[in-house]
Amino acid sequence: MTTLYGYFRSSAAYRVRIALNLKGLDYDQVPVNLVKGEQQGADQRVRNPQGLVPSLMLDDSSVVNQSLAICEYLDEVHPEPALLPVNPLARAQVRALAQLIACEIHPLNNLRVLKYLVGELGADETAKLAWYRHWITEGFTALEATLSSGSSTGNFCHGDTPTLADICLVPQVYNAERFECDLSAYPTLQRIAAHCRSLPAFEKAAPEAQPDAS
Amino acid sequence: MTTLYGYFRSSAAYRVRIALNLKGLDYDQVPVNLVKGEQQGADQRVRNPQGLVPSLMLDDSSVVNQSLAICEYLDEVHPEPALLPVNPLARAQVRALAQLIACEIHPLNNLRVLKYLVGELGADETAKLAWYRHWITEGFTALEATLSSGSSTGNFCHGDTPTLADICLVPQVYNAERFECDLSAYPTLQRIAAHCRSLPAFEKAAPEAQPDAS
Repeated sequence: MTTLYGYFRSSAAYRVRIALNLKGLDYDQVPVNLVKGEQQGADQRVRNPQGLVPSLMLDDSSVVNQSLAICEYLDEVHPEPALLPVNPLARAQVRALAQLIACEIHPLNNLRVLKYLVGELGADETAKLAWYRHWITEGFTALEATLSSGSSTGNFCHGDTPTLADICLVPQVYNAERFECDLSAYPTLQRIAAHCRSLPAFEKAAPEAQPDAS
Repeated sequence: MTTLYGYFRSSAAYRVRIALNLKGLDYDQVPVNLVKGEQQGADQRVRNPQGLVPSLMLDDSSVVNQSLAICEYLDEVHPEPALLPVNPLARAQVRALAQLIACEIHPLNNLRVLKYLVGELGADETAKLAWYRHWITEGFTALEATLSSGSSTGNFCHGDTPTLADICLVPQVYNAERFECDLSAYPTLQRIAAHCRSLPAFEKAAPEAQPDAS
């Protein structure tokens, strides 16, 4: 059985849960508690020397790390329903939307970075929140501009079926809400995220629906 | 003619130059001076609302943003020589290596982030360098562990032809050298980067070989 090593609140694990659910795949979940630092333990480092989640372990015990690599792997091995359009330019545009989140917002705002800010740099709670919100504002403003003017934007980030872009958007919106970011300037993101969240594959992937939710 | 909007020292633009060269494609370059803040100007924001480089403008004036999305686009439209292996699991492992750099190291150490540290957070030069080196150490330690023990590691990160992983590795090594990071703990990364840099496609893509190098 495919096994996901993740954490209910990890945005990157949340992406993989959505992809697995969209593909209709069965999987086991093994929680790796990020707050307790279990991702840095020997068990998780065997799967991912970087000590991060998620890791997906396949039936033959091969491991795939990095959430976007996992999602594209699932899309290649289980092509239906497709997580990327067919046309190369459209594929690139969907990947670029996903990467705007996965390479420009999320890496700056995850737990290990916030910990470094507070620990090594001595940032107080206000400075930490300002940092978090700054990168959300930078990224979401660009994403809103792209999606609100994009001719390919539909019920989802690209057209009327969920893609890799939506898989990244929903966990990032969830995370921003948790940090009480004002999202009123991003009506298109909010509309798309709300639509996604009404679907069973997204609903079942939500942090609060996970066995390790606390 | 395909046009790359980039900057000689941008790691992300450097990746795209390598990919274009590996594919043997002709392209024009239009420099967007990051130090002068030109990426935030109206011209670049039309191409990328986020105000970042690189952007690749195609013959029909379509624009693709995000360096990994651009590289995968080039790989799909010009399949030879391939930047990813054929086997889905191997593809995922190459993408994961690329993303370890593109999602876990580079986003934390690029110009806009270092500027925020110094500006908004008041970090001094020592604290800024410590930050930079911390994320290099975290990422490169994991990458070295993965590559030095990996059965697929060859002259390149995966096998004996350059892939998306090498396209990300070389600019990150270049950048780490510029910040005078001690790379002696990463012999496999150094060996692979040196081999890559001996090839014309990488050589021609090097920052100092670009028209806007200063």
